[in-house]
Amino acid sequence: MYEGIAASRGIGIGSVCRIIEHDLTYENHKPEDTGAEKERLHNAVDSFKKETTEMAEDIRKRIGPKEAEILEGHLVMVSDPAMVGEMDKMIDNNQCAEAAVTAVCDMFINMFSSMDDELMKQRASDVKDIKQSLLKILLGIEDINISKVAPGTVLVAKDLTPSMTSQIVKENVAGIITEIGGKTSHSAILARALEIPAVLSVPGIIDLVNDKDTAIIDGTEGHVFINPTGDVLSTYIRKREDFIRKQEELKKFHGKETVTADGKKLELFCNIGTPKDAKKAIECDGEGIGLFRSEFLFMNNTHLPNEDEQFEAYKEAVTTMGGKAVIIRTLDIGGDKDIPYLNLEKEDNPFLGYRAVRYCLANPDTYKIQLRAIIRASAFGKVKIMLPLVTTVDEVRNVKAMVEDIKKDLDAQGIDYDKDIEVGCMIETASASLIADKLAKESDFFSIGTNDLTQYTMSVDRGNPKVAYLYSAFQPSVLRSIKNIISAGNAAGIPVGMCGEAAADPLMIPLLIAFGLDEYSVNPVLVLTARCIISKWSVEEAKALADKVMELDTEKEIVDLLKASAKD
Amino acid sequence: MYEGIAASRGIGIGSVCRIIEHDLTYENHKPEDTGAEKERLHNAVDSFKKETTEMAEDIRKRIGPKEAEILEGHLVMVSDPAMVGEMDKMIDNNQCAEAAVTAVCDMFINMFSSMDDELMKQRASDVKDIKQSLLKILLGIEDINISKVAPGTVLVAKDLTPSMTSQIVKENVAGIITEIGGKTSHSAILARALEIPAVLSVPGIIDLVNDKDTAIIDGTEGHVFINPTGDVLSTYIRKREDFIRKQEELKKFHGKETVTADGKKLELFCNIGTPKDAKKAIECDGEGIGLFRSEFLFMNNTHLPNEDEQFEAYKEAVTTMGGKAVIIRTLDIGGDKDIPYLNLEKEDNPFLGYRAVRYCLANPDTYKIQLRAIIRASAFGKVKIMLPLVTTVDEVRNVKAMVEDIKKDLDAQGIDYDKDIEVGCMIETASASLIADKLAKESDFFSIGTNDLTQYTMSVDRGNPKVAYLYSAFQPSVLRSIKNIISAGNAAGIPVGMCGEAAADPLMIPLLIAFGLDEYSVNPVLVLTARCIISKWSVEEAKALADKVMELDTEKEIVDLLKASAKD
Repeated sequence: MYEGIAASRGIGIGSVCRIIEHDLTYENHKPEDTGAEKERLHNAVDSFKKETTEMAEDIRKRIGPKEAEILEGHLVMVSDPAMVGEMDKMIDNNQCAEAAVTAVCDMFINMFSSMDDELMKQRASDVKDIKQSLLKILLGIEDINISKVAPGTVLVAKDLTPSMTSQIVKENVAGIITEIGGKTSHSAILARALEIPAVLSVPGIIDLVNDKDTAIIDGTEGHVFINPTGDVLSTYIRKREDFIRKQEELKKFHGKETVTADGKKLELFCNIGTPKDAKKAIECDGEGIGLFRSEFLFMNNTHLPNEDEQFEAYKEAVTTMGGKAVIIRTLDIGGDKDIPYLNLEKEDNPFLGYRAVRYCLANPDTYKIQLRAIIRASAFGKVKIMLPLVTTVDEVRNVKAMVEDIKKDLDAQGIDYDKDIEVGCMIETASASLIADKLAKESDFFSIGTNDLTQYTMSVDRGNPKVAYLYSAFQPSVLRSIKNIISAGNAAGIPVGMCGEAAADPLMIPLLIAFGLDEYSVNPVLVLTARCIISKWSVEEAKALADKVMELDTEKEIVDLLKASAKD
Repeated sequence: MYEGIAASRGIGIGSVCRIIEHDLTYENHKPEDTGAEKERLHNAVDSFKKETTEMAEDIRKRIGPKEAEILEGHLVMVSDPAMVGEMDKMIDNNQCAEAAVTAVCDMFINMFSSMDDELMKQRASDVKDIKQSLLKILLGIEDINISKVAPGTVLVAKDLTPSMTSQIVKENVAGIITEIGGKTSHSAILARALEIPAVLSVPGIIDLVNDKDTAIIDGTEGHVFINPTGDVLSTYIRKREDFIRKQEELKKFHGKETVTADGKKLELFCNIGTPKDAKKAIECDGEGIGLFRSEFLFMNNTHLPNEDEQFEAYKEAVTTMGGKAVIIRTLDIGGDKDIPYLNLEKEDNPFLGYRAVRYCLANPDTYKIQLRAIIRASAFGKVKIMLPLVTTVDEVRNVKAMVEDIKKDLDAQGIDYDKDIEVGCMIETASASLIADKLAKESDFFSIGTNDLTQYTMSVDRGNPKVAYLYSAFQPSVLRSIKNIISAGNAAGIPVGMCGEAAADPLMIPLLIAFGLDEYSVNPVLVLTARCIISKWSVEEAKALADKVMELDTEKEIVDLLKASAKD
């Protein structure tokens, strides 16, 4: 058995087909005619654009708009005059087109890789993909045609490029195994969109398998078996049936209300990262957006997005949701999220530093543009403003004062907006939890961010493997904090949501029902799972379990009891 | 008016005497005889050692043992064969003795400066001092004789070296102003020990003053006035009288019990960093040691101190305290405290990482040596074991199991110790605060570390100036956390102390009395101040004030009310 990252759920069983990377070495030569060499480069770039546009169109139709965005991102990058301009300069300096592509792309790859940020690392991988595609075109190499694989094929590759993925015929591919890539890599996103089980980051897997080997992929647990014994095989055939049966069962929850076993109506919202994700939320039957991360607008950019750019993006999400709530979290940068053009200083402990609402309040000119764009979008649906990383009452008061100023300006200019637009807090610091009653008086709603709340409560960097054993929302202290926050919100009569990962955790859901959580905001693909689990618990049963849990002293005891009490 | 760091309290008024640094430039030359050049170096090193030993002896007598340690540290460093050995090698490579001293010292200075740690930065400054002294000896330059200054002199220097300080006649020096150095620099330590008002880190002050200028130094606020107006002068003459009167008043509290105005007996302990500090605690009338930081043993070292080295150090503190409690905090490294020879990995957020009890439990062999040394020291007085950075019940249980194992071993070996040695927790994380009732069941005592508790509650790195405005123990959330911890300890019937800076804060003390804090652990020099303030508040009065404070929403409102209610 090999272990990797569980990137797309489900069990896949099939026959291995290895995708060996092309040899893209070239002979470096001084071009005889730099003008002709530049033309060769530009022709290659044009072919690349044409192919990519077609593939993007194909993916958009077959898979979805979000997945097509990856390729559209490639087009934007290649169309940046800086990129081809730099390559031209290299050719002027007597380099061949291949060398120019390699040097310029490598420069961008190094730059993006050095940034300590998941999104920027993705950008590096985009440029790698562009580089390979351009070199293939220049060298006249034909791509492997994945569209021709037989049904029941397990693809094993170093990494899946978007161009490979565009050729995948869902019915024929039983599973995907790669050597690199994480949960948020393109390979993972595309595998999940195609509902193909996938395990990524299995070290050296290409050299460990042969074509036609039998492979089992457990994309839920992150396990891979090559040429398994009969026992293992039959176990996984059963598991696959179970998985498929449960997925079918979940479909029954599509279009239903989210209610507990004893009929308490709850709200099941989605977390999204781009306006286009709102479509996914609707498709997955989300009842609103509980967390719209506005960072994408700032990170997928080389400059601060202006008010209209922001307004259009928010409006797109809001109109897509057609009257359903859209909670927009204002800019949450700093911490592990850097935006190069903001030139934030490097900090010793960025998670305890200048980030989120602290940055926003210190840069009111930037922040007012965002708030104004959000408030203008409220004319098109039900928009709410959510502040990240609140620690004091002053912060909420200051933002509300800014909102009031903006409303007055809009009134004066005759611009339409929702006069009752709500302003709420993310509760994700120990301070906010401790003064939740005071914050509730200033807020229209709460949303608990369990990832940060756990990090700050436990004094554990959630990315640090050496202390990962302490990082759990099931720690007695974190559960108490969650309970206190919900109680404070309930007492003040404001709705309390949760947009951290815990909101979709089958073990956590009964506790949240018991504590009185109103709104559960989850990854769109988990909407039906969460609705199904909620339907199985009555408030009374959940409370009885929660009472027992809150008596326990250790995280292990708590998780053990919750596992033993879980409803399948 | 110029602003600097308030490094030694009190008001000084006098006439400026600038200490201009010597020109230590030398002509680099190839030695004719490397053997003779090495001898010249060794002679200089010997002279340095002799002078330093004499000065250390003088400082020990006139000022105190802790202050003499600085110079003794220089001796240790210079006696390290690696240092002179490296210099010899440079001479063998045809460098002159001056160049060898410069190159080798600069190497150490760069190494120590690059470490992000206050203690290591001090070490860098020690090496700078050694370098200057050696160059002076090699170049035949006589040091300025500070011992000859007239009464009422204000010394203005780039930095005060220990060798300068050893010449200070306390009666003649009215104040000290320097361009560099922080609260924990040698200049600051020595100024405080001599009770000379000092303001450090005043940028460019040497060029801003002339000899014989009149200077006022407010070492309490960090202000400096040069050639002040008559009004300012008379204000500060009054302030100086007030300060001296108050200091006299404080002396009345020496030898007294620590009691509130209505007679509630409290404990007033000291925070110390080395065994020798225990003497200072006794001199300052401390009633015990509330925090003995054991890191010094590990940081002033090039290897892990063995059990006997540790035992001797703990025993020295314990016997000095003669039966009074000594609470030893076990190794609190990581975070901002690095120990080079432990080779800890660099972390993205060290304050949320692998530190303190986390490190200790992950390295049980190292930790058992420390625990065993502490337990053995308990045969000589009243020792308690305190665990830093607790977040879970498991951590306390695990340490207690180790303590029990060690006790069994000691029993088997017939080694004496206190069978009832207490094990308690620092409560300094949000998690520990939230589960204080559960931790109280496992602990013999609590001690609140307000510096870290504030940092973690507010999600603010206490060293980060960009978010310093949020870092305050008077934030409503931090005060609630402190109150909850004390209540949980009181309810469980275990004593609750505080060893963070807030325990000595005149504004905080009434709140702590109201919340029911039992033990106040402060810097030795603040014992009498704290006892004086405690004597002015009755529990009832303090509670009435605390009730009002806890109703307030913002840190500013709280501090304003506390200032308005302060008793002079």
